Amino acid sequence: MFVATNRLFVPAERAEEFEAHFRDNMRTYLPGVPGLRRSTLLRPTRPDQPYVSVNEFDTEDDFRAWVASDSFKEAHKRNAGIARHVTGNAVETFQPSEDLVLLT
Amino acid sequence: MFVATNRLFVPAERAEEFEAHFRDNMRTYLPGVPGLRRSTLLRPTRPDQPYVSVNEFDTEDDFRAWVASDSFKEAHKRNAGIARHVTGNAVETFQPSEDLVLLT
Repeated sequence: MFVATNRLFVPAERAEEFEAHFRDNMRTYLPGVPGLRRSTLLRPTRPDQPYVSVNEFDTEDDFRAWVASDSFKEAHKRNAGIARHVTGNAVETFQPSEDLVLLT
Repeated sequence: MFVATNRLFVPAERAEEFEAHFRDNMRTYLPGVPGLRRSTLLRPTRPDQPYVSVNEFDTEDDFRAWVASDSFKEAHKRNAGIARHVTGNAVETFQPSEDLVLLT
């Protein structure tokens, strides 16, 4: 399992536009990405916190292939309008072993 | 859906002990917590990044009830030994709407 997160600070007055754009991009570009298990946009409960985008892949290679794909580039090209209002954009990656995931 | 994350910086020489302790606590204290869907410990891929603990609940009330529970207090009492080596400990909470979760 390989997880990539991105911390995205969005001003309150742009939150609705940001979510609509993100939701649309998820539905357009993510289905069928090889090795992608789950994608989530975590909405902050406090105004000083960022959104956190979480993408869970089977392997690091799947993540790297996605970042190098035309579909990824196309999606990010479409972000240009809203992206100028988003700060942070700090990607972090993680490799949880399967025994550190508990489904209850 | 209500998600609580905790960013935990652990020195490299304590990582193995920390993971073993965390894994044991997950298995001892988390099964049966009402409303808890999934618990994950994200292991950093770089030494300057934190572990991120992610707990996904059905509702905020489920999260609050867990934090107030004897089981939560007991688990955190058992953390005392390793906790002195952990820094950060910054809890953030999120409320993703279900349409911002994509299973592929």
